[in-house]
Amino acid sequence: MINNVVLIGAGNLATQLALALFENGIQVKQIYSRKLETAIELAGKVGAAFTNNLSQLISDADLYVIAVKDLAIQEILENLSLNENMLIVHTAGSVPMEILDGFSLNYGVFYPLQTLSKYRKADFSVVPVCIEANHPSNLMKLQELAGRLSDSVHQISSVERKTLHLAAVFANNFVNHFYAIGAEILEDKKLNFDLLKPLILETAAKIKTLGPVEAQTGPATRNDTATISSHLKMLQDRPEFQKIYSFVSESIFQLQQKHNHDLF
Amino acid sequence: MINNVVLIGAGNLATQLALALFENGIQVKQIYSRKLETAIELAGKVGAAFTNNLSQLISDADLYVIAVKDLAIQEILENLSLNENMLIVHTAGSVPMEILDGFSLNYGVFYPLQTLSKYRKADFSVVPVCIEANHPSNLMKLQELAGRLSDSVHQISSVERKTLHLAAVFANNFVNHFYAIGAEILEDKKLNFDLLKPLILETAAKIKTLGPVEAQTGPATRNDTATISSHLKMLQDRPEFQKIYSFVSESIFQLQQKHNHDLF
Repeated sequence: MINNVVLIGAGNLATQLALALFENGIQVKQIYSRKLETAIELAGKVGAAFTNNLSQLISDADLYVIAVKDLAIQEILENLSLNENMLIVHTAGSVPMEILDGFSLNYGVFYPLQTLSKYRKADFSVVPVCIEANHPSNLMKLQELAGRLSDSVHQISSVERKTLHLAAVFANNFVNHFYAIGAEILEDKKLNFDLLKPLILETAAKIKTLGPVEAQTGPATRNDTATISSHLKMLQDRPEFQKIYSFVSESIFQLQQKHNHDLF
Repeated sequence: MINNVVLIGAGNLATQLALALFENGIQVKQIYSRKLETAIELAGKVGAAFTNNLSQLISDADLYVIAVKDLAIQEILENLSLNENMLIVHTAGSVPMEILDGFSLNYGVFYPLQTLSKYRKADFSVVPVCIEANHPSNLMKLQELAGRLSDSVHQISSVERKTLHLAAVFANNFVNHFYAIGAEILEDKKLNFDLLKPLILETAAKIKTLGPVEAQTGPATRNDTATISSHLKMLQDRPEFQKIYSFVSESIFQLQQKHNHDLF
């Protein structure tokens, strides 16, 4: 059983994970960050020790969590000097578990599928945690730990995790970009973005009960070319948004056709 | 003051509007729908009379609301035979108010900026209602009525309303399409769409406190070409999604650059 953890990283994910561990009675022994002030800030919130020196990591933690940017994982691993029995996980969506092979005999992945921010408290109990491990005994340990933080724990392979991450890019990054385009369109005409917020919240809330294809409405779905043309004309000063409008409208229409075809 | 209403239409918007009127003590006198059963179904919920014949509309209501598809408004108007003093509004985002000119001396627009469904109860009190009228006295009447249903009432011109509708297409239709693409990507690999739902809800909830450009994360923002290439490769069997991925990623990067440039 994992009773204490060393966290390598102090960014968005590391911060929310540290808070969730702390609140669920799992000791965060130490926080590492390249920047000492960043390590100190997070360590202060969860009563942990801190360091900006990988050679000063505590040597006997039950689990070492590497929660840094994808591209920094390799470098962290090459500079770790832990006993080869120590259990190490990373938290990245797109990085295969096997990156940890050779650095320890016990390793795995602990991937929370959520958008996490340093200063916005996450309700970790509803965050899907995707776990993977190199050995059943390690998987059991991670399963038990994840189960203390979240009601939604899933055993997911590296290949599946990559697919989840790709889907998450559409459902988070791209969706958020469309909020941004909406905001730009309104700002260009001095209209307040707040007017769109209830719509944004309800659009998301709907998928709890309605499939997204079923929930789809709007000019593209009904191939309303008059409205589509008029919208494209309104976007003539923003050719990049015009292009996206055309492509996405076309794609909506195709997907609706495909599903109608599947149904009948 | 508007104490009673005749509703022309019984679709998604008409249904939620009828329920909101009814619950706030404004009498729905009569419901018209082309299909009699549809009129009867909604009329039953709000204690209204019903008809599928425009020549049988009650002649003395305080307000006539045309809540039908954009393309059906003109035909409805041509078949109405009301006293020319009657107050008439439509509820469409993209249709100018002036479509009502010539059919009555008193007219306006009552546009709820929300995605509404027949069978999903809307909390109308938070729905932004955009109103417009051909005369200050009509505007006052609509303002007062809207204020009884919603805490968010806005005087919006036809041109502004069209801009809001365009922004709403991005924030609702296009966003929802990206939920659908996420669902397709997972389905192709037999992964459960439920795994994405907490992310979708949190992505929307974030905009309550964080601007969408500020909230943006992901490979496109940091121009992480390795992850972008790998995602494009994963989409090779879905070329339409591949194309959208490229365009949107490019657009995210450009918008971030623009905003960074604005900042420094």
